[in-house]
Amino acid sequence: MQVITNSTVRAVLQARPAISHKGDFGRVLIIGGSQQYGGAAIMSASAAVYAGAGLVSVASDLSVLSGLHARLPEAMFIDYQQPFVQWSSAVQAADVVVVGPGLGITSFAVELLRKILQTIQPTQTLIIDGSALSIIAHEKLTIPNTQLILTPHQMEWARLSGVAIEQQTVATNQTALAAYPNATLVLKKHYTEVYHQQQVQQLTIGGPSMATGGSGDTLTGIIAAFCGQFGTHYQTICAAVYTHSAIADELAKTQYVTLPSQVIQTLPHYMAKMIHQS
Amino acid sequence: MQVITNSTVRAVLQARPAISHKGDFGRVLIIGGSQQYGGAAIMSASAAVYAGAGLVSVASDLSVLSGLHARLPEAMFIDYQQPFVQWSSAVQAADVVVVGPGLGITSFAVELLRKILQTIQPTQTLIIDGSALSIIAHEKLTIPNTQLILTPHQMEWARLSGVAIEQQTVATNQTALAAYPNATLVLKKHYTEVYHQQQVQQLTIGGPSMATGGSGDTLTGIIAAFCGQFGTHYQTICAAVYTHSAIADELAKTQYVTLPSQVIQTLPHYMAKMIHQS
Amino acid sequence: MQVITNSTVRAVLQARPAISHKGDFGRVLIIGGSQQYGGAAIMSASAAVYAGAGLVSVASDLSVLSGLHARLPEAMFIDYQQPFVQWSSAVQAADVVVVGPGLGITSFAVELLRKILQTIQPTQTLIIDGSALSIIAHEKLTIPNTQLILTPHQMEWARLSGVAIEQQTVATNQTALAAYPNATLVLKKHYTEVYHQQQVQQLTIGGPSMATGGSGDTLTGIIAAFCGQFGTHYQTICAAVYTHSAIADELAKTQYVTLPSQVIQTLPHYMAKMIHQS
Amino acid sequence: MQVITNSTVRAVLQARPAISHKGDFGRVLIIGGSQQYGGAAIMSASAAVYAGAGLVSVASDLSVLSGLHARLPEAMFIDYQQPFVQWSSAVQAADVVVVGPGLGITSFAVELLRKILQTIQPTQTLIIDGSALSIIAHEKLTIPNTQLILTPHQMEWARLSGVAIEQQTVATNQTALAAYPNATLVLKKHYTEVYHQQQVQQLTIGGPSMATGGSGDTLTGIIAAFCGQFGTHYQTICAAVYTHSAIADELAKTQYVTLPSQVIQTLPHYMAKMIHQS
Repeated sequence: MQVITNSTVRAVLQARPAISHKGDFGRVLIIGGSQQYGGAAIMSASAAVYAGAGLVSVASDLSVLSGLHARLPEAMFIDYQQPFVQWSSAVQAADVVVVGPGLGITSFAVELLRKILQTIQPTQTLIIDGSALSIIAHEKLTIPNTQLILTPHQMEWARLSGVAIEQQTVATNQTALAAYPNATLVLKKHYTEVYHQQQVQQLTIGGPSMATGGSGDTLTGIIAAFCGQFGTHYQTICAAVYTHSAIADELAKTQYVTLPSQVIQTLPHYMAKMIHQS
Repeated sequence: MQVITNSTVRAVLQARPAISHKGDFGRVLIIGGSQQYGGAAIMSASAAVYAGAGLVSVASDLSVLSGLHARLPEAMFIDYQQPFVQWSSAVQAADVVVVGPGLGITSFAVELLRKILQTIQPTQTLIIDGSALSIIAHEKLTIPNTQLILTPHQMEWARLSGVAIEQQTVATNQTALAAYPNATLVLKKHYTEVYHQQQVQQLTIGGPSMATGGSGDTLTGIIAAFCGQFGTHYQTICAAVYTHSAIADELAKTQYVTLPSQVIQTLPHYMAKMIHQS
Repeated sequence: MQVITNSTVRAVLQARPAISHKGDFGRVLIIGGSQQYGGAAIMSASAAVYAGAGLVSVASDLSVLSGLHARLPEAMFIDYQQPFVQWSSAVQAADVVVVGPGLGITSFAVELLRKILQTIQPTQTLIIDGSALSIIAHEKLTIPNTQLILTPHQMEWARLSGVAIEQQTVATNQTALAAYPNATLVLKKHYTEVYHQQQVQQLTIGGPSMATGGSGDTLTGIIAAFCGQFGTHYQTICAAVYTHSAIADELAKTQYVTLPSQVIQTLPHYMAKMIHQS
Repeated sequence: MQVITNSTVRAVLQARPAISHKGDFGRVLIIGGSQQYGGAAIMSASAAVYAGAGLVSVASDLSVLSGLHARLPEAMFIDYQQPFVQWSSAVQAADVVVVGPGLGITSFAVELLRKILQTIQPTQTLIIDGSALSIIAHEKLTIPNTQLILTPHQMEWARLSGVAIEQQTVATNQTALAAYPNATLVLKKHYTEVYHQQQVQQLTIGGPSMATGGSGDTLTGIIAAFCGQFGTHYQTICAAVYTHSAIADELAKTQYVTLPSQVIQTLPHYMAKMIHQS
């Protein structure tokens, strides 16, 4: 299986054109969080901002607002308990929508996800993560025809694909992924694999210092920002996955555990280094 | 067109007199923020504090209060949903009023802006930014005779002046600005231009690392602080504009994106450097 | 009495297996905090996350939520004022439960503690700290048969054991501890002692820079994380106690007082150093 | 007039006794803050914690709670809008009470101050700051016989003493201070003066980088912590005043403005340096 290296990151990352504005770097909307899991939305949005997304909004529970502001004044906020019609325009205006981090699996979450799936247009990028994947599997929701990225860990993928963890091989994963014709699958595991149609690449970095709550939320934010800036391509997604783990491994040289907040703050520096070395 | 350099910053920045107190360095009032865009007010106020304003207050939505305290205990807070009469004295007491960052364009915002414009006195400095500019254009509000600074990006200027972006030249901008006799126009674009009557100067710094949400809010805070400390002069405003971009460009040597929070924290250091080198 | 050294830390800390996930490093639930003492729960949870616990939740008063998110988005939150039946599953799912930091001694706290004690299963680790110890002494609550860790300071131990401070010797403490057959006692004092059945070890580090509010809350978080990662063994607990004081003493070389927040942020670095030197 | 130097700081600061606990370093209660001026209470409490106070509580408006937790989980919180009888025990239990930072001058503030003044006992230290001084002057409240520290700036002192700013000399200040037999007066001005009975000392440090909102609140927190640790003596108060300005001046070498948050974070390091050099 082809291994993702920092060559992919260097090929994907572009020095920003001198004449550009924030609108050129993607409008990212993170839909997630809840009273119980609000930090997930905060971490995903933080990763998106620090990875360079032009404009980042969070649609979440009101209880998330103060913590979000305290950490990330750069992000905008939408109360997702408002009637959907009052903020569906924000979904439509986004280049990249992330749905799932910390959303939970309440009936509210199910209904919200249903509306998001009905609203997304083919030109938009949709990243489905965390509990949204479990809801889709459980409720058998139809995923619309869009630029789709799925980011399950192995158990979530088992639920979604019907392929048990011990039977997840490149071949079975590719077959199962065919149910989502245009999708990219980021299968999170020891040495994460990234699938798109007949392509598959694998990480061989990403140590156990990352095994802590919030790693997955952080990854979706990086993927969102990269797609917003560099286009939703297979290589873009591979570069985001590599970036996340490369930073954690670097921090792990001097830290036993590498927290999402720390990975996030390192993003602008790592990205500059990759640009300057390429 | 004359280019703004750090000579302007050095000429404007003054070593503080040994005998002085916070009242000498300007009372700045930031009116903005909302449930959706609260971070904008937080960033603008933070920039004002870190750029040396003596006393900074934020008039905003109550939902902004905890995030503001968490980041910036140095700022005071006013709930702008109170009857205006209860806090109009704070508007009157300010040396510099910023209106607009994150204010939104709701009917509440329109009415609030109307009251602010009626309250401002000729001796006060008024910086109109963001959505306040759009409201003024849309509602055809009259801007009072005051020390006026407008900080539109090109689209906002098009709305306000009626000059389409592709027709914005020095000549057309100067003609349009004549509608605001005493105003300074900070026209935000690639290589921002600063107009005042027959004068025009241009930045040739400010790279694309700054193309991220909150850059404009940060700039208004710096302008407010500089006017509060060094007087509302054309050169003061040019110095503030230069300072904002110079810091971002310096950070961009090691960062792919330079976030408002990071620019803000660098302000006291940059200003010290400019003083010591002059 | 045997002295705890960093050999214990080196023996307990394990390099993480390459193939592992967050579930392998412990689900920690901190039950505590209140409107008055919310920071205690935040510090305990922060220590648990920075010491490497895989998943950390805080069950607390709603007033704690925003401050927790602002400092620690990695943690999940449960409103403990909900009917207990709605979140008892979270207690059952935890590998390690900390109860007490900042809980207070209200009748609500008494009832909550009663329910926790009834819910805990023998396979779970239960760390009882702070006001929970006082409640148990005062209400004569029965502690269930579980992996029990008690973390009183001398006065709390006097209340719990009936042994007055001036009569607390190794012999009297061991006799009193026999009332809790499987418990480990961390008796916090100048040169903290750790008891388990016939074993007793003592710290000879931990200077007075740590004599500040929140030190105890921080310690419980570290113990919880260590038990979650390395198993609930006597040596694990000794290693956690040593780690807490060793970090503070290191910081005290350049600080008059060493705050919990600072000790917490140093945890990942200290743990990496211990691994690499072993 | 005698000049305060760092010799005073070195004489006052004591290496902590090896056997000590947080109760030995003072229970400090900060009563202040309000919806409008909440940051003042946060900064005062932060200064007290970072200057080494053993236990710090904040009695304030509920709107201050989340911001306080976000910045300073080490502090405890009391909702001062509760009936006073429910928290008067906290006033009685404090070694040092600070009243005033950000309290405002509402009728609520007046009544609260009245109750505090009635509750304080002769053995307690009471630091009266900011708006509390104005209230006392305006309402002609009687200050009880206690360990009293007044921290007015010149205008507040004029209101309190009846001595107009231009007539404030050592002689007139000493005469006016005689109205408060046991009080220490910290008269904040360019080169702050500290009076106690016939003694007077003056700062000759403390540059204009400190002329920013929150400096005074920070100073009261430092004084409170020093009194809590080293006793309420004239030299202790002089040492606190010097420490505040010495840190700011050191930071001012590389910063144009030195914010309270930055001074606060430097406190533990400065205090260690003074101890080690003495």
